[in-house]
Amino acid sequence: MDPQLADVSLPARLAGDDEGITMEELALAARNHGLPLEALRHDVTPPGLHYLLVHYDIPDLDPADWRLAVTGRVGTSLELSLDDLRARPATTVRVTMECAGNGRALLRPRPVSQPWLVEAVGTAEWTGVPLRSVLEKAGVDAGAVEVVFTGADHGVERGVEQDYQRGLPLGDALRDEVLLAYAMNGAPLPPQHGFPLRLVVPGWYGMAHVKWLTSIEVVDTPFRGFQNAVAYRTRQSADEPGEPVSRILPRALLVPPGFPDFQTRRRVVRPGRVELTGRAWSGRAPLTAVEVSTDDGRTFSPAVLDPDGGHRWAWRRWHATWEATPGQHTLAVRACDAEGNTQPDDGAWNRGGFANNLVHRVPVVCLS
Amino acid sequence: MDPQLADVSLPARLAGDDEGITMEELALAARNHGLPLEALRHDVTPPGLHYLLVHYDIPDLDPADWRLAVTGRVGTSLELSLDDLRARPATTVRVTMECAGNGRALLRPRPVSQPWLVEAVGTAEWTGVPLRSVLEKAGVDAGAVEVVFTGADHGVERGVEQDYQRGLPLGDALRDEVLLAYAMNGAPLPPQHGFPLRLVVPGWYGMAHVKWLTSIEVVDTPFRGFQNAVAYRTRQSADEPGEPVSRILPRALLVPPGFPDFQTRRRVVRPGRVELTGRAWSGRAPLTAVEVSTDDGRTFSPAVLDPDGGHRWAWRRWHATWEATPGQHTLAVRACDAEGNTQPDDGAWNRGGFANNLVHRVPVVCLS
Repeated sequence: MDPQLADVSLPARLAGDDEGITMEELALAARNHGLPLEALRHDVTPPGLHYLLVHYDIPDLDPADWRLAVTGRVGTSLELSLDDLRARPATTVRVTMECAGNGRALLRPRPVSQPWLVEAVGTAEWTGVPLRSVLEKAGVDAGAVEVVFTGADHGVERGVEQDYQRGLPLGDALRDEVLLAYAMNGAPLPPQHGFPLRLVVPGWYGMAHVKWLTSIEVVDTPFRGFQNAVAYRTRQSADEPGEPVSRILPRALLVPPGFPDFQTRRRVVRPGRVELTGRAWSGRAPLTAVEVSTDDGRTFSPAVLDPDGGHRWAWRRWHATWEATPGQHTLAVRACDAEGNTQPDDGAWNRGGFANNLVHRVPVVCLS
Repeated sequence: MDPQLADVSLPARLAGDDEGITMEELALAARNHGLPLEALRHDVTPPGLHYLLVHYDIPDLDPADWRLAVTGRVGTSLELSLDDLRARPATTVRVTMECAGNGRALLRPRPVSQPWLVEAVGTAEWTGVPLRSVLEKAGVDAGAVEVVFTGADHGVERGVEQDYQRGLPLGDALRDEVLLAYAMNGAPLPPQHGFPLRLVVPGWYGMAHVKWLTSIEVVDTPFRGFQNAVAYRTRQSADEPGEPVSRILPRALLVPPGFPDFQTRRRVVRPGRVELTGRAWSGRAPLTAVEVSTDDGRTFSPAVLDPDGGHRWAWRRWHATWEATPGQHTLAVRACDAEGNTQPDDGAWNRGGFANNLVHRVPVVCLS
């Protein structure tokens, strides 16, 4: 490691028992933002409300100069302009995307990194070219095992200078729904969401959806780059290799009912019937149930789960009713899917704070 | 105060000397977001990158049902639909908007509230109807002194349940450039920026630009509502009335050069000529200078300040060059305006953490 680069990076660490959020974590929270939970009301998240995580800086790319290189273990290397991509048959997929670090700041001890609570999620209509059609045009060699995607965002992480890069197993890369997307909700990608082109891997956590794509390389050995081999892995201790983070575990979120206090965000309702609603999703398998508790998770009842409307990779709306009575209450909601994945009552802790799909809890005061 | 509402609110307070950012402050930072500083490159901030502060929840308003009431000390009360407003002559104004709490989290002791660093700013093209034309249509009575604007966002603040409301002195309300805006950057307002209608008061901090407007009331005594009389005032101690927060003090920000570390956001450059650029603005008076320091503020040199291009109420680009040499450096930038307002080297402290326009500093490591 370059000793000077080590000067700007801090080692991975866990916060102390009573350690508040650090100024470095705050600087990340001020840049990268979550979905205000009341925006769960929208089927498709309006521009600017979708969660955003930018590892380094938003690159400034001129679409006239920009090209996508397709290289490596292929029959014919390609260099594609944005017009080349737009000229190919396009597909639109509605996708719920969630940051792998969602829920991290609720873990104890807290891994020090982007300090998400529960709101690092959003749903968009992504339009672009199926990745498979581009790989087929290039011709993938028989020995290929992975596809490596490189973005134009450049920075340092744990002392390692890098362009953001992720490898994806070939079998996942060839799935029908994987896109090279140039439009979000019918408009060109916003700068912060990967303009002019990003990868979209429905069902996977956000780290797989490489933004500001500049190159696609087909490789014949598993990719050992930083984001696959070091960063996005679940580990209990720092010295184990860990398991790679991949598909999204089930999660249900509640639109916090009533109205909030500005400073604490605590909720207030008045006595009587309160409609509870929210969204739920899983990138692993179709959802089978959403359950709601109005007694802090002691008992749960089934919520009504809307059908997916043909959008397998998007969240689904759920709703339930609650007869609110004066006093303090804690609402909770959880989802499970057809593979039997559920939400734990406490987060399943790991050092990176990844894939923490703990049950969503919302304290509410009902006035008398 | 309703004791139950007091249960959800916390009293105003200052953080302890070594107290980290609290979970309540983090929840605000996760919802409300700043401008990633590299987005200062854009003359007009792209959708989703403009800073956002929502006091309570984003209301869900149906434009078909929505009406704007114009009442109080007027000759004729009005009830206007969105179509009524769109049928009137429209104006577009480019406006740099900044949160009054920008810089708060850098103050010592830190006022506990929305924990902004320096990025609570953005510039948009707002289109709408001049407020004056609507007030003239209603006819303002001779004794009127202020105009009270009410938004649809409802919540609790320091134990007080309220719709967000602000009074504006009549003289300011009648200025040419004050708009009832229904479009942002040529599109209908996004939900989070006040759909379907917001007030825009060029030159004033963000709290004046009331979103989700439902009513305008002309009054003959100064408005004593929470947001004018309690919240947005600069005070040294809790028991003084304080001064109202109004127009934006000058500020210059720097696009952090080079590339960042993910976790610390510290910057890295390589030796040689580095172009420094950024934006500067003042809501008080036209800017007269921007100055840059490459030695942590010991010495400053003039930057080149671009003309305003006819956009009096928008930020202006500035640029300078720096010959970077290996080692650790701290860059700094400051602006001053034609009224003689400048930027202090430390923030001018007040209990609310308002209008803190301290000099912007950016530490940079230049590799050898």
